[in-house]
Amino acid sequence: MTVDPRAHDAVEVITTKRDRHALSDSQIDWVIDAYTRGDVADEQMSALTMAILLNGMTRAEISRWTAAMIASGERMDFSGLSRPTADKHSTGGVGDKITLPLAPLVAACGVAVPQLSGRGLGHTGGTLDKLESIPGWRADLTNEAMMHQLEDVGAVICAAGAGLAPADKKLYALRDVTGTVEAIPLIASSIMSKKIAEGTGALVLDVKVGSGAFMKSLDSARELAETMVALGTDAGVTTVALLTDMSTPLGLTVGNALEVRESVEVLEGGGPADVVELTLALAREMLQAAGSDVDPEAKLRDGSAMDTWRRMIEAQGGDPSAPLPTSRESHVVPAPATGVLSRMDALAVGLASWRLGAGRARKEDPVQAGAGVELHAKPGDRVVEGAPLMTLHTDEPQRFERALASLERAVEVTPDESTYTPTPIVLDRIV
Amino acid sequence: MTVDPRAHDAVEVITTKRDRHALSDSQIDWVIDAYTRGDVADEQMSALTMAILLNGMTRAEISRWTAAMIASGERMDFSGLSRPTADKHSTGGVGDKITLPLAPLVAACGVAVPQLSGRGLGHTGGTLDKLESIPGWRADLTNEAMMHQLEDVGAVICAAGAGLAPADKKLYALRDVTGTVEAIPLIASSIMSKKIAEGTGALVLDVKVGSGAFMKSLDSARELAETMVALGTDAGVTTVALLTDMSTPLGLTVGNALEVRESVEVLEGGGPADVVELTLALAREMLQAAGSDVDPEAKLRDGSAMDTWRRMIEAQGGDPSAPLPTSRESHVVPAPATGVLSRMDALAVGLASWRLGAGRARKEDPVQAGAGVELHAKPGDRVVEGAPLMTLHTDEPQRFERALASLERAVEVTPDESTYTPTPIVLDRIV
Repeated sequence: MTVDPRAHDAVEVITTKRDRHALSDSQIDWVIDAYTRGDVADEQMSALTMAILLNGMTRAEISRWTAAMIASGERMDFSGLSRPTADKHSTGGVGDKITLPLAPLVAACGVAVPQLSGRGLGHTGGTLDKLESIPGWRADLTNEAMMHQLEDVGAVICAAGAGLAPADKKLYALRDVTGTVEAIPLIASSIMSKKIAEGTGALVLDVKVGSGAFMKSLDSARELAETMVALGTDAGVTTVALLTDMSTPLGLTVGNALEVRESVEVLEGGGPADVVELTLALAREMLQAAGSDVDPEAKLRDGSAMDTWRRMIEAQGGDPSAPLPTSRESHVVPAPATGVLSRMDALAVGLASWRLGAGRARKEDPVQAGAGVELHAKPGDRVVEGAPLMTLHTDEPQRFERALASLERAVEVTPDESTYTPTPIVLDRIV
Repeated sequence: MTVDPRAHDAVEVITTKRDRHALSDSQIDWVIDAYTRGDVADEQMSALTMAILLNGMTRAEISRWTAAMIASGERMDFSGLSRPTADKHSTGGVGDKITLPLAPLVAACGVAVPQLSGRGLGHTGGTLDKLESIPGWRADLTNEAMMHQLEDVGAVICAAGAGLAPADKKLYALRDVTGTVEAIPLIASSIMSKKIAEGTGALVLDVKVGSGAFMKSLDSARELAETMVALGTDAGVTTVALLTDMSTPLGLTVGNALEVRESVEVLEGGGPADVVELTLALAREMLQAAGSDVDPEAKLRDGSAMDTWRRMIEAQGGDPSAPLPTSRESHVVPAPATGVLSRMDALAVGLASWRLGAGRARKEDPVQAGAGVELHAKPGDRVVEGAPLMTLHTDEPQRFERALASLERAVEVTPDESTYTPTPIVLDRIV
């Protein structure tokens, strides 16, 4: 795509959206190109993004905006591989370690998984931070090494290179400091521009809903999911979205090494029921979208997913047999009453884990590999007053106080079991 | 006012307005102070101003915003003068030379006029640019020289110092490049913060309405006028606004020296009827607001306003008897038909004058003293096809073509006099 640098000017594009008109294809191409080159200043782009947040964009505008962001950088191409590819993207949740068992499981079924991931910021953990708790494991791969590993092992989880959608990287950093993160057109185009540029053939979106998710309501999650599915479909990528519950943490562990341990339990045929259920649901979607009819449950049971995990970790320098790091200090939180655990708030547990050292406040902060929260019960389980409900882990005991503060009012126990209604993991499916 | 630099953060303030809530006094004080100091970045302020433009501000928010901009700089104080003060502000129009005869006229009636003015940008001329066509006249005065001239002559028209409302200067430049000029709360607080900081006791606002004005509709002009009158009143300044017609140029001249010549004609007892009418209407408002019952018409007739003009020009180094500059080239535009001139568009004539060299596109551009447009008829006058309707003036004849292009469709002549309805100059009065 070539863009005439004199085709438009920033004030004209801003006032078009400010005055509630649709941006033309030419205006969108121009503003993304000029912003990437530095001809549109940050203060102009932030005024435009605020106008987009408040006045919205049509589906055609979002699609063009996404295409322009993809055109701002390089595109990867997996068409030379001997097998089809499928990728998964989660909008982020507490205890969401699903990528770890999912990528080797789908690869063991014959579909390659090129999973470009990020580090965590805020209360939801990052996949790369989790894997980096495995001794020796490296997140950074060249494109050639990535391609070789995809052909050889079938699964790779690594850091996204700087060349994919540079406009999105610049825009995301700007939105973060200008109060314009919460715009569905911009969230959708940010995610989809990276995923489409990455070159996957099929894409399954796990859009989280609830207190621990970015989208707090089913309606907003559905709008985001529908927008992203349409963008993927428009770009020729088979795209499906599941709306999944994030009112309570996934599984029984939140924290980097703690979540790797639980992922390995799932690959060994055990693990918490909700993690197994969601891993299999997403695997079935990825396989179906890639045109495969292999049953992932069989590959989990026969150990081939576990074999692929070991080869995937080793290919990136990690030792899958090495003991995982643990933290030096722990603190047990008892159940406040006897009865059925009716609520365990995802956001509160996520914040507690973050405050224990598992997450970072600024992108240059380190994370503690062993820090986090272990849960001894989940909503629906019976608990006894005074018995252990959670165990907090950190290397720095002065962190317990603020972690405990975030857990106040995080838990409810009802004496009357009949008042508790379980929430399903998968709330809806958008195609 | 002292502001705690850690009281708020930019994203919190932006998202409050983005989500349609009112900003608190503390948020407003903080964001203006932090922006002036550079702690709030341009890209954050532009997102906030776009949210203000789209979601509005309450009267209480606008009042606090204005107070915070005043507090960002110095305030002048004229309470030591032996006479009351009154100032006038016009929102800008084509051929609007009213300040030139008005300031000496009101001073001749015994009320001091401290008129801090600006240079022109775009199709409306600047008062300082007009006066600078008088040989020797200087716009820049120290505060002491200004105070001395006010006491001695009673009228001063000079450039505003950099110390008044520096937050407004920074914010105005930002709004200009981010499509956020057209927000009534921000326009009102920008004008009023400067006028209140300037320290006048009474203020008369001339809010222009029509094609040549910033406000195209009576409704938006009335909203702006009411907002500004409330801000002035809240700050203890007696404030009145007139809504006046700007569908056609004021008087018969548009351009720097051309408008000085016409102003002198008014001070000599002649001049176009509309300029005389508006000058007297604004003078009566200023005098009444300052508590004076002197009749300005008598002071115009007896030559005392002209005497004050000469002393005002001389006090700033100008020679009021020197011939005014004229341009080297002229071009006559004939009337297109015979009948009654029913429309002469202010914006089109303003653009023509600007393109002839009377105005500037960028603030560092020079202006031509002699360039501009002379009108030989005004709406309501009879014209004859082929007879001179306008004369264009410039030093650079290559400018005629683009000036003539802006005048296409600027003029309408009706053969049937009964279809023409004259528009009054003063459309409404807001107190």
